[in-house]
Amino acid sequence: MKLGELTKNPRGFRVAGIYRISKFEVKTAKNGKAYGDFLISDLSYDVPAKYWDIPADLVTVLQENSVLRIEAALDYFKESPQLTVDAVRIPAQQEIDESLKSLGLMAPRAIADMVNQLQGYIAGVRHGGLRQMLLAVFSANTELAEQFKRHPGAVRNHHAYIGGLLQHTLEVAENAADCCARNDKINKDLLITAALIHDIGKVREIEVDALGLPVGFTKAGKLLRHISLGIEMIEEACEEARLEEELRLILKHCILSHHGLPEWGSPVEPMILEAELLHYLDNLSAKSEQFTREQERTEPGSFNKSFVLRRDIYHANF
Amino acid sequence: MKLGELTKNPRGFRVAGIYRISKFEVKTAKNGKAYGDFLISDLSYDVPAKYWDIPADLVTVLQENSVLRIEAALDYFKESPQLTVDAVRIPAQQEIDESLKSLGLMAPRAIADMVNQLQGYIAGVRHGGLRQMLLAVFSANTELAEQFKRHPGAVRNHHAYIGGLLQHTLEVAENAADCCARNDKINKDLLITAALIHDIGKVREIEVDALGLPVGFTKAGKLLRHISLGIEMIEEACEEARLEEELRLILKHCILSHHGLPEWGSPVEPMILEAELLHYLDNLSAKSEQFTREQERTEPGSFNKSFVLRRDIYHANF
Amino acid sequence: MKLGELTKNPRGFRVAGIYRISKFEVKTAKNGKAYGDFLISDLSYDVPAKYWDIPADLVTVLQENSVLRIEAALDYFKESPQLTVDAVRIPAQQEIDESLKSLGLMAPRAIADMVNQLQGYIAGVRHGGLRQMLLAVFSANTELAEQFKRHPGAVRNHHAYIGGLLQHTLEVAENAADCCARNDKINKDLLITAALIHDIGKVREIEVDALGLPVGFTKAGKLLRHISLGIEMIEEACEEARLEEELRLILKHCILSHHGLPEWGSPVEPMILEAELLHYLDNLSAKSEQFTREQERTEPGSFNKSFVLRRDIYHANF
Amino acid sequence: MKLGELTKNPRGFRVAGIYRISKFEVKTAKNGKAYGDFLISDLSYDVPAKYWDIPADLVTVLQENSVLRIEAALDYFKESPQLTVDAVRIPAQQEIDESLKSLGLMAPRAIADMVNQLQGYIAGVRHGGLRQMLLAVFSANTELAEQFKRHPGAVRNHHAYIGGLLQHTLEVAENAADCCARNDKINKDLLITAALIHDIGKVREIEVDALGLPVGFTKAGKLLRHISLGIEMIEEACEEARLEEELRLILKHCILSHHGLPEWGSPVEPMILEAELLHYLDNLSAKSEQFTREQERTEPGSFNKSFVLRRDIYHANF
Amino acid sequence: MKLGELTKNPRGFRVAGIYRISKFEVKTAKNGKAYGDFLISDLSYDVPAKYWDIPADLVTVLQENSVLRIEAALDYFKESPQLTVDAVRIPAQQEIDESLKSLGLMAPRAIADMVNQLQGYIAGVRHGGLRQMLLAVFSANTELAEQFKRHPGAVRNHHAYIGGLLQHTLEVAENAADCCARNDKINKDLLITAALIHDIGKVREIEVDALGLPVGFTKAGKLLRHISLGIEMIEEACEEARLEEELRLILKHCILSHHGLPEWGSPVEPMILEAELLHYLDNLSAKSEQFTREQERTEPGSFNKSFVLRRDIYHANF
Amino acid sequence: MKLGELTKNPRGFRVAGIYRISKFEVKTAKNGKAYGDFLISDLSYDVPAKYWDIPADLVTVLQENSVLRIEAALDYFKESPQLTVDAVRIPAQQEIDESLKSLGLMAPRAIADMVNQLQGYIAGVRHGGLRQMLLAVFSANTELAEQFKRHPGAVRNHHAYIGGLLQHTLEVAENAADCCARNDKINKDLLITAALIHDIGKVREIEVDALGLPVGFTKAGKLLRHISLGIEMIEEACEEARLEEELRLILKHCILSHHGLPEWGSPVEPMILEAELLHYLDNLSAKSEQFTREQERTEPGSFNKSFVLRRDIYHANF
Repeated sequence: MKLGELTKNPRGFRVAGIYRISKFEVKTAKNGKAYGDFLISDLSYDVPAKYWDIPADLVTVLQENSVLRIEAALDYFKESPQLTVDAVRIPAQQEIDESLKSLGLMAPRAIADMVNQLQGYIAGVRHGGLRQMLLAVFSANTELAEQFKRHPGAVRNHHAYIGGLLQHTLEVAENAADCCARNDKINKDLLITAALIHDIGKVREIEVDALGLPVGFTKAGKLLRHISLGIEMIEEACEEARLEEELRLILKHCILSHHGLPEWGSPVEPMILEAELLHYLDNLSAKSEQFTREQERTEPGSFNKSFVLRRDIYHANF
Repeated sequence: MKLGELTKNPRGFRVAGIYRISKFEVKTAKNGKAYGDFLISDLSYDVPAKYWDIPADLVTVLQENSVLRIEAALDYFKESPQLTVDAVRIPAQQEIDESLKSLGLMAPRAIADMVNQLQGYIAGVRHGGLRQMLLAVFSANTELAEQFKRHPGAVRNHHAYIGGLLQHTLEVAENAADCCARNDKINKDLLITAALIHDIGKVREIEVDALGLPVGFTKAGKLLRHISLGIEMIEEACEEARLEEELRLILKHCILSHHGLPEWGSPVEPMILEAELLHYLDNLSAKSEQFTREQERTEPGSFNKSFVLRRDIYHANF
Repeated sequence: MKLGELTKNPRGFRVAGIYRISKFEVKTAKNGKAYGDFLISDLSYDVPAKYWDIPADLVTVLQENSVLRIEAALDYFKESPQLTVDAVRIPAQQEIDESLKSLGLMAPRAIADMVNQLQGYIAGVRHGGLRQMLLAVFSANTELAEQFKRHPGAVRNHHAYIGGLLQHTLEVAENAADCCARNDKINKDLLITAALIHDIGKVREIEVDALGLPVGFTKAGKLLRHISLGIEMIEEACEEARLEEELRLILKHCILSHHGLPEWGSPVEPMILEAELLHYLDNLSAKSEQFTREQERTEPGSFNKSFVLRRDIYHANF
Repeated sequence: MKLGELTKNPRGFRVAGIYRISKFEVKTAKNGKAYGDFLISDLSYDVPAKYWDIPADLVTVLQENSVLRIEAALDYFKESPQLTVDAVRIPAQQEIDESLKSLGLMAPRAIADMVNQLQGYIAGVRHGGLRQMLLAVFSANTELAEQFKRHPGAVRNHHAYIGGLLQHTLEVAENAADCCARNDKINKDLLITAALIHDIGKVREIEVDALGLPVGFTKAGKLLRHISLGIEMIEEACEEARLEEELRLILKHCILSHHGLPEWGSPVEPMILEAELLHYLDNLSAKSEQFTREQERTEPGSFNKSFVLRRDIYHANF
Repeated sequence: MKLGELTKNPRGFRVAGIYRISKFEVKTAKNGKAYGDFLISDLSYDVPAKYWDIPADLVTVLQENSVLRIEAALDYFKESPQLTVDAVRIPAQQEIDESLKSLGLMAPRAIADMVNQLQGYIAGVRHGGLRQMLLAVFSANTELAEQFKRHPGAVRNHHAYIGGLLQHTLEVAENAADCCARNDKINKDLLITAALIHDIGKVREIEVDALGLPVGFTKAGKLLRHISLGIEMIEEACEEARLEEELRLILKHCILSHHGLPEWGSPVEPMILEAELLHYLDNLSAKSEQFTREQERTEPGSFNKSFVLRRDIYHANF
Repeated sequence: MKLGELTKNPRGFRVAGIYRISKFEVKTAKNGKAYGDFLISDLSYDVPAKYWDIPADLVTVLQENSVLRIEAALDYFKESPQLTVDAVRIPAQQEIDESLKSLGLMAPRAIADMVNQLQGYIAGVRHGGLRQMLLAVFSANTELAEQFKRHPGAVRNHHAYIGGLLQHTLEVAENAADCCARNDKINKDLLITAALIHDIGKVREIEVDALGLPVGFTKAGKLLRHISLGIEMIEEACEEARLEEELRLILKHCILSHHGLPEWGSPVEPMILEAELLHYLDNLSAKSEQFTREQERTEPGSFNKSFVLRRDIYHANF
């Protein structure tokens, strides 16, 4: 349950769920025994908690920002809720994911499925250099590949959940593949490759907490933005794949120009067909998600002001 | 052959092809016989021609701006080319089309195939009112439907050839269908319908010559533009289909907003998901064609200044 | 009196005035008798009211959103004001209007006088087609003509009161007539006609309550705006008047372009003299009212920030 | 006649008209006699001319850039036209004016009439300080008042002829007076005064030739523009009229803001009603003239590209 | 001490410092004696104060808005602080300045030193006319010269303290002198002169209180802004110095164009080298101060939103 | 001499100077001897030349695009100039430079002096990491360091000559050092370092010919621009210098933001003081050169339209 809903319940109510321990200290009670003094948190709320007679082995295992399955009883101190913990367990990743998914904080599709689809796209790239470059980014480089799997696609708004970056990337690639299927003027290897790496810089632009949820921009993210970071990030992979110079330039140009206009963050406008298409395909995915989210908050037949889209949104009623 | 290439040939050279008679007068020769005094034209050139002893039955049939198959011999008068016609025939539409296609002045796909595909999309719309509305536009209203089949999609640049409007419309619909196949949040009936009618106003905005080639904007096109004209044009069809008010508003909103921003011609920005998608799908088709055309004019590995896109275009070399 | 000023008065204070019944239910009191449970409203406040022993004939007549003359005594329940109604009467339109006028919610000039002036302008149009078109809009079409008489000119700000649209329309026409009197290059019939219909779309763009006061934008208003709606609205009148095509295009162009620039809502800029003048005449009326309203709120010799005009306003002091 | 039309005529054709002597030298012919070697000019053409046996008294009177009535015979030298002058006379101002008017280089209305109307507006200003200020500008200061009477209103385009500045000024004042007649919220003295002086800076911004025709911008005009120059020019008049500080600020604000927006040349937007109205009234006059001129160059029923207005202009056809 | 920190102290705490008397009335106490009823103020807070048995000579001397050295004891009335004054003294200017400097409300450098530096720059101008003009502004005209010494450079933000205008002016002149030292294409006399007068209009644009601190814009400042005011202010000095017309125009052009672009307040862009440089030198000084102030409020290694600069500011951490 | 001036001379005129051999073939003459068939070029002209009886050793040494000292006699073939070469010598670099300098195609200051000054700035950086990074760019990396010394600063306009990039870089650094000397809030090491590397990407953005003169943009220059290229180019140097992460981010941010606004090519605006200053210092140098060049082309007291600066330029006259 969301911690924000705790206070709808009476003293003694049993709470069980997966939360973050945002503060953790071991103190000594008046009776001389050690107890844990916690702040238990979800996305929006922090609730103080005590774990009396905390098991000694737990003391050595727990850390601030650990994500744990917690069982506790609800109490009130001066009308503020407080928890008395009586069991703590390190949950399996899958258990955490289900919890996040039920709260809408994780991509609807399974991460593993999406990773398979990503690998499928990479395997389908026929140009050896491009395929090697993609493998260098998404497989060989273990740390980056691991981060990419679960990274959010934004700090807030569309795709701002765990796995959001991967889901957005695949949506762009799917539409790209459709375009290629009908138009043989498009260089499919190039467009698919550009689609898969276009937002890679977001891995370094967006800061995540212990759960993997976005909490803001990193220092590098604010000072350089994901476009510059992304160009830098593929450099090494291009080197490893010994990619020819022409293609390196073009891939970087695709990243650099994919926001379409200087005032939207791209100092150069797209100069090749695939870069131009990438810009619109990126928008198709991003705006679909954003509109869907905004319309869900709006009653059918009525309007709602969207701060992200800077206009009124209408939820059609038919 | 293009009339511009006539002068590469010697006196007496035989010319046979499909041209427009842009001026046609019957005069009387010194010998008292009637002869035809013509101006024979293709897209770029006008060549004077004489048809001595013109058959009497032809005189009653021919009109200015007729499109004819002409056989003639080349002559020169003060170094300017002149034709002596000896046979004239009204060509079949198919014959005309082949001629246009070979000159790049007609859509690559066969008109009949495209019309079938259009009808298929209409038949696939499950909402009765929307389907009826589409039928009212594209079938019942014979004149509009006929015009739509062969209308160009622009005065110059992308899709500026016979059948270009239909081809662009289908490209938008194809991409729309792909999006719907993967995202059940999109109302497919609405998006397909909007895709099919979004540029219907171009039928009244773009002026065509006897061959159906674009020659400029109509008076209504300059004063009102295709967005306003399109909204007006679907009104009657909505009435015939007794389409519910909610859907009429939404369809008109889709047309009105599909250029995305006021400075691009849409006084309102898209307020519903399908209108937003339409804007990007429209660009995907238009910019694909434009980029392809521009890149074909550019040597691989070099740049070219595009006046339409207002930037340099690069023809990638790999 | 304004309901917002009720609480300046003691219990038992007598209230008499014209208000809207925004909620109306008949309930049964503990003594078994029917009573009316009301919410009595003016522009800004809602006050609960009880009508004990409500006459049976009134029960069948009253409806939510009726506008009534109410007499009541003031009471307080937990410091909130409450009214005890003892008489209710359906007021004459004139009585309502006087009440609105005293609150600044109605045009300063009498509606009837303004309608006469409007008819005078129409009668003065010498071109038969244009005059017929105007009659079709403003007389023959009873419902639209009735709405137009009392419609507000805006949701808030300048002319945002009953009759404001008519008053603004006449101000534009008056200035137009002056211009024509001094410049015979202007086609007076065209400019006057365009002036009279330029904002006709506001009848369908702005939503009004039972009193006729603006409460926001209609669905059509938000999705299409008054310019598109206006073009649509004159189409039928043009048809009835069998107006020649040239003039239909020009009138629609005048409506379409009267905001002057794309970023101000007009996808085409004015292309004929009369359309260009209309743009400035429209502003003369609108900005005069807005400035006058803003300056009245400002002390002489001091400045005030205007949110509508997005600048500081100065009330000159001499 | 226009010098550009000379060559339609045969050798010996008699020319008589008012022209400028743009080059003037006295030379000695082979026969030992003095002759005048001229360049005779109108707005667009220069033609060489000889005045054989030029009268001695003329030699002392003539100067380069003099405006003269010339009689001559047409000759040709290597196919270029050349004039042989046989009479020269200094024309009366009225004679010059008629000549200019017939060439469209002078205001349609008589200067004297316009000056009378200007004086009428000044006399009608009831506020003593404002009236004194206007008199200081338009009467007392002889040089400025004289220049203002005949100054052009622009270098090219609308009102770019002799007397154009005065005519434009009066058009603005006329419309201003009309607005005041119907709206007593407007301070008429202020609006009329501001209308009369709003473009006074153009006297110093636009450079004129000997005939009074605009030839470009002055140095001060390019470096400071007419708005800054105008503010400076009324300062002395305000001082003479001992105008109160409040009104000086407001008048300067009216001049400073009358272009409406920074990108149109006004660093502050209008902050008082009369300044706001002045902006639209200025446009009404300027755009009326510009549109009228552009439409006159356009065939009825067709369009023309206007470089000044940066759009197509349509000449309506009804 | 800042009045905002008073409440950290207990009843009876002794307060001594320099404050403004923003309200001052003499009343009669119940014992029949006169007492002073004050409001004692600093930049941010007003505290009520009583001066029992106020000396009769003080009553005649004190005025509202006087700046005084006050000694008082702290008291509380219903938890709000109140002062009981027991000594009041008119402080020396130097004493006031030290007090202001310690609160960051005065330029870091001594006013006298800055005035000396200013005089040094003036003395170094070799062109007699320019030097005379500067002397007319900064010495001869006593009132303006006095105001300029202590005027703030802005209402808020950079250089918004006493002496800020002078300090900013000198910073611009210092950088200007450096540029000239390395580039002999620059006319040093002109650039230095322009630097010294470029913001002179701020003396009339910014309103100051009795202490000389900025409290907002003057009426003239809002209606005309400092650029127009500055041009006007140097006119008389140019006259006195009999400066040649060419230089007057250029100096005014430098003032007029120093904001660089219309949307930043300059209706003309710089047209001469020195005007162009002035624009960047002005920014170097202004932005240095603004950034320094903003970074001081930001923790090293973190970001802060700057409302003035409309972006995030980073305080580098190394 | 410039080849464009050849035709002012008669047949037989002796030509001696330094030119580029833009085409070079060895052919066999009718007499069976080898001769050189050249195209001899300077910046603007190509002239055909023959070298009869070309020495055998030269044949092995010469290459297309070599820069040579050539002696030849002028001839004419069908009125076109042609040269008969009789001596060719590989000139010393200094000899080439003098030739270029006399044509205004080389920096006014000696390259060696400027390199010394650059090394001085580097040596003065006290922060070890920054100094090491600069050495890695400007010394260790021989190829880049060599290119940087003579690279032009632009394709055309300001600093578009050999050594222009270095001269511009030093101008920015000089002004930066001046600012630091007076303002201890600036981190001098950072600002100097940023100044020295801010335009390093131009080495890869601008294409030069054999003489080192700019001939256009490279492919990488068009697709990525010098800002992105520069960020990439310092990466390796940062790695070599083991520069701390914080400083790498900041240096890249300085490069990324130094154009100030998105529409001027910087996707992020400056977020730290030194980045902000760099933007204005860059402009001070660039605009000084540009204005100086433009004013030199303009008569004193007159205006000239500058296409680069998009405004009129005035050459002040005093």
